[in-house]
Amino acid sequence: MQTRFDIATNGPGLYEFTTHLRHWVTGTGLLTVFVQHTSASLLIQENADPDVQTDLQSYFRRLVPQADDPSMAYLTHTAEGPDDMPAHIKAALLPTHLSIPVDEGHLALGTWQGVYLFEHRNRPQQRHVIAHLSA
Amino acid sequence: MQTRFDIATNGPGLYEFTTHLRHWVTGTGLLTVFVQHTSASLLIQENADPDVQTDLQSYFRRLVPQADDPSMAYLTHTAEGPDDMPAHIKAALLPTHLSIPVDEGHLALGTWQGVYLFEHRNRPQQRHVIAHLSA
Amino acid sequence: MQTRFDIATNGPGLYEFTTHLRHWVTGTGLLTVFVQHTSASLLIQENADPDVQTDLQSYFRRLVPQADDPSMAYLTHTAEGPDDMPAHIKAALLPTHLSIPVDEGHLALGTWQGVYLFEHRNRPQQRHVIAHLSA
Repeated sequence: MQTRFDIATNGPGLYEFTTHLRHWVTGTGLLTVFVQHTSASLLIQENADPDVQTDLQSYFRRLVPQADDPSMAYLTHTAEGPDDMPAHIKAALLPTHLSIPVDEGHLALGTWQGVYLFEHRNRPQQRHVIAHLSA
Repeated sequence: MQTRFDIATNGPGLYEFTTHLRHWVTGTGLLTVFVQHTSASLLIQENADPDVQTDLQSYFRRLVPQADDPSMAYLTHTAEGPDDMPAHIKAALLPTHLSIPVDEGHLALGTWQGVYLFEHRNRPQQRHVIAHLSA
Repeated sequence: MQTRFDIATNGPGLYEFTTHLRHWVTGTGLLTVFVQHTSASLLIQENADPDVQTDLQSYFRRLVPQADDPSMAYLTHTAEGPDDMPAHIKAALLPTHLSIPVDEGHLALGTWQGVYLFEHRNRPQQRHVIAHLSA
């Protein structure tokens, strides 16, 4: 059982889509979501205090500065803009897929866990996430 | 086939639970373990020399210092203590789930691979890990 | 349905094996690949411009310097060479396994996604990757 979720993004940040997944899953099995891009990630994170998302973004912006930052002068893949190669690096550091057990139609998430797409590019994007449910 | 493993932790560090998994798996399939928290991780690492675990902790403590370190002054989610937001960041950098093939009742781990819960919080915690075995 | 892919490496870097996977998968299901080592990783990354791979390596070499770099003087697991403990750290930061949906015999990769083994050790190695296909 497979489907595709399309997620429109408008700049770097976390876009929650937990509810889409809750509505789609059924039975008992394993849900896997997979992002078909190398400049965006999937992430499970706290869904209570939005400051957590702000701080996550701040941290990763410092860990992987844009290509026009002097500390990143060694980058060579820069033709697609200063946010492109750092987006690929963040996509290496963060998950491309997530697998979550499903128990009698319910995602086995912890109380404070939400599922997010983490956008790393500056311009608006249309992102594709493939969902697969196995027994 | 699903179950839950409860792992008590007592401060930051790696807690091995490979043996629990070896005893539980059966047949041929795919084992997935999923941690229901956003301030702890799951990790496959070397199980031979305990210095590897010490060094891993040292590295991640430097990569993501506590919130009261001057370099982390930009953090805003600080009400739950100086170890809380860094724990969320480490949980983003390290796996929330692991999937391991199972071959005729045996985990397909390499010779030196062990399965660990990586605790990021300072105080004692009771951690829940959901295990799912699919064909 | 399981098999093993053996990948010979000759120093740090990304080794693509997407084609091996494309030829092996069949039907509709979930492919999981798992590397049986704690000093190498699996990674999905851009397969168009080879500069992306060069830049990824440059970034991770700076994020996790060799043990003989003064900034890494705190490491204790150094008996197996200056590239060994940094290899374990990179193996913690990067995936040990990948799961990719398969749709009617086709890997559901995005247009620019390739599947790589990321070698972290300096000397030639023979790496084992277990592949599992579930329904």
